Amino acid sequence: MLHLQSTTARRWLAQVDAHLDEMLIDHAHCEKKAAGTALNLIFHYVEDRELCQEMTQIVNEELEHFHLVLALLDRRGIRFRRLKPSQYGRKLNDLVRKQEPARAVDRLLVAGLIEARSCERFQTLADHVDDAELADFYRSLFESEARHHATYTRLATHFAAEETVLQRLDELAAAEAAIIAVGEDAPRMHS
Amino acid sequence: MLHLQSTTARRWLAQVDAHLDEMLIDHAHCEKKAAGTALNLIFHYVEDRELCQEMTQIVNEELEHFHLVLALLDRRGIRFRRLKPSQYGRKLNDLVRKQEPARAVDRLLVAGLIEARSCERFQTLADHVDDAELADFYRSLFESEARHHATYTRLATHFAAEETVLQRLDELAAAEAAIIAVGEDAPRMHS
Repeated sequence: MLHLQSTTARRWLAQVDAHLDEMLIDHAHCEKKAAGTALNLIFHYVEDRELCQEMTQIVNEELEHFHLVLALLDRRGIRFRRLKPSQYGRKLNDLVRKQEPARAVDRLLVAGLIEARSCERFQTLADHVDDAELADFYRSLFESEARHHATYTRLATHFAAEETVLQRLDELAAAEAAIIAVGEDAPRMHS
Repeated sequence: MLHLQSTTARRWLAQVDAHLDEMLIDHAHCEKKAAGTALNLIFHYVEDRELCQEMTQIVNEELEHFHLVLALLDRRGIRFRRLKPSQYGRKLNDLVRKQEPARAVDRLLVAGLIEARSCERFQTLADHVDDAELADFYRSLFESEARHHATYTRLATHFAAEETVLQRLDELAAAEAAIIAVGEDAPRMHS
């Protein structure tokens, strides 16, 4: 369903255990970035009505999640602050082809893969942590991330035939698995 | 209440009468841009909690308005399309000072002045057009634009003393009046 070609390594769970606060702060930033990605897609493909409708819903939901994470930080006395983002998003966006309509396909599929990986990590986190509030919180976000992944993948077929989209999704998912396997030292949702 | 230093000239109403369809299409783009402005402010001032809350509400409302205008275009059989934007927003943004916190003050006040002018033009349009649906539609948007103006002006006081903010608002409002007085040939919401 999520088209991912790997599952999260135990290495990441060790980062979660050692730096949970920083992970949660990064999560808030990720929700904000996801809203930005969806709004940018409205700006670039404004004549695609279905895309504009779906992206509007995603913007609203991601901003709602952003505030839910901020509220969670507040309840835990964690000060929200700027963080150097992980390189994950940039590395994936570097794979986006420059020429339209391939560019639109890639932007949508990359956005969808980030949602898919977030979804998989939320599930992994919920199963791992020994903290009922946190586990429930991450399970509550799971469904919308999975739905966003499906939406992005479906919208990509506005710009190329379905078979072409699925083939490109395979390529990008393989690249995503390679990027996330390398990981990063700073503890982030996508490290 | 709106801090504007001029009222819309009859010249603009002549543009409305001659190019109503194009004006409505531009209006849809303006709502989208207003959402982008609010989201950008979240990205730049993410540690200001009240700003993030208010900007989230504005993003949601502007995107809702964007879709309301698209639906209005549909009902009238007007095809939504890309348009070269007016120079109004760029000219105002050129006045934004580069150094923080003055930059934050100016970005918020400029965003607020654009809301104020939109509000004033919506009222002018509603009073002018001989079309009940359109008049009602523009009256329904009036209140939120006025509220957004007030929100932006209040948030500017997070970055400078109120007296300093009001003095700068006076300067920027004078510049805004000069820019809108010159006008533009292409029929736009802010031409």
